[in-house]
Amino acid sequence: MDLLKEKIIKEGKYLGNGVLKVDNFLNHQIDVDILNEMGKEWYRIFRNENINKILTVEASGIGVACITAQYFKGAKVVFAKKSKSSNIGNDFYSAKAFSFTHRNTNELIVSKSYLSEEDRVLIVDDFLASGEAFDALVSICEQAGATVVAVGAAIEKKDQGGAERMKKRGIRVESLAVIEKMDDDGTITFSD
Amino acid sequence: MDLLKEKIIKEGKYLGNGVLKVDNFLNHQIDVDILNEMGKEWYRIFRNENINKILTVEASGIGVACITAQYFKGAKVVFAKKSKSSNIGNDFYSAKAFSFTHRNTNELIVSKSYLSEEDRVLIVDDFLASGEAFDALVSICEQAGATVVAVGAAIEKKDQGGAERMKKRGIRVESLAVIEKMDDDGTITFSD
Repeated sequence: MDLLKEKIIKEGKYLGNGVLKVDNFLNHQIDVDILNEMGKEWYRIFRNENINKILTVEASGIGVACITAQYFKGAKVVFAKKSKSSNIGNDFYSAKAFSFTHRNTNELIVSKSYLSEEDRVLIVDDFLASGEAFDALVSICEQAGATVVAVGAAIEKKDQGGAERMKKRGIRVESLAVIEKMDDDGTITFSD
Repeated sequence: MDLLKEKIIKEGKYLGNGVLKVDNFLNHQIDVDILNEMGKEWYRIFRNENINKILTVEASGIGVACITAQYFKGAKVVFAKKSKSSNIGNDFYSAKAFSFTHRNTNELIVSKSYLSEEDRVLIVDDFLASGEAFDALVSICEQAGATVVAVGAAIEKKDQGGAERMKKRGIRVESLAVIEKMDDDGTITFSD
């Protein structure tokens, strides 16, 4: 998605060690115009897939999921929680995910009320790198018997292998900007 | 806002002890149609206020903020983080907030890059009860020299006093469904 790639080149900052900072438009300050372009692109790809749930994990995925859900008429967003709040109840699916950004392991939780075998799910997030969070969300869908139509991030860091591993398992991956490599001088090379 | 009140009556569950569960449409599963109605209503109220930033806090406020920002052309969302991620840097505003839902105190953090004295800010969240999170977000705006045009939640629980306290400080409060009281039998009474 060219608009997103241009935005990454213009506003992203490579901090070294595989860390790309895009908090100017994606995960601290949020530019809802670029999120709308992302939602339109996923809708273009998946418009015939009868997607009725957009699944993500708190926090940075929520904006992406909500804006995207608007294009899939009637679709609901569900976001996995990283901690058990006092009123989620005891009836939930869960799976563990390690976060490279925060350097900790979270148990992702989704209430059984909001995912079932009738659901056709698009899983989205801001980043797909090693794929730990996506793995956990796929596991939660499997526990619910829901159909994972595809997973996709705004930005995929290909060299961290998460997308490749999921594709080998037969999961469709449709990220919108796929980064091949980032050089120490800040040059970002996209796939294709 | 009648549509939201109807949704709360139809889909909310009162769990006792002041806890209203609305995770069917607001803070676990998210109904983007009702969020759009909320965004339209805030835009109707504030359309002449030149709002250019919608400020919230992770996680449940992010969907509300993103959908709302679409109505204020060119406005950006900024969400305060509850933990210092590895790449936020050291240049940020912060304020402490106690969470009744999670029973802990978080330090809310906003990078200095994303709030300044040029900003006219609408602060939104899913709930306004005792107002701890809103107080922290107002404090962050004050630190940045930004103008707080108003604060508003989807749902305000009036008896917990947060809104009243903020109004006494001269802050405009525009919540969309204001709950006067909730009875043990599950009856919810709204303020006009």
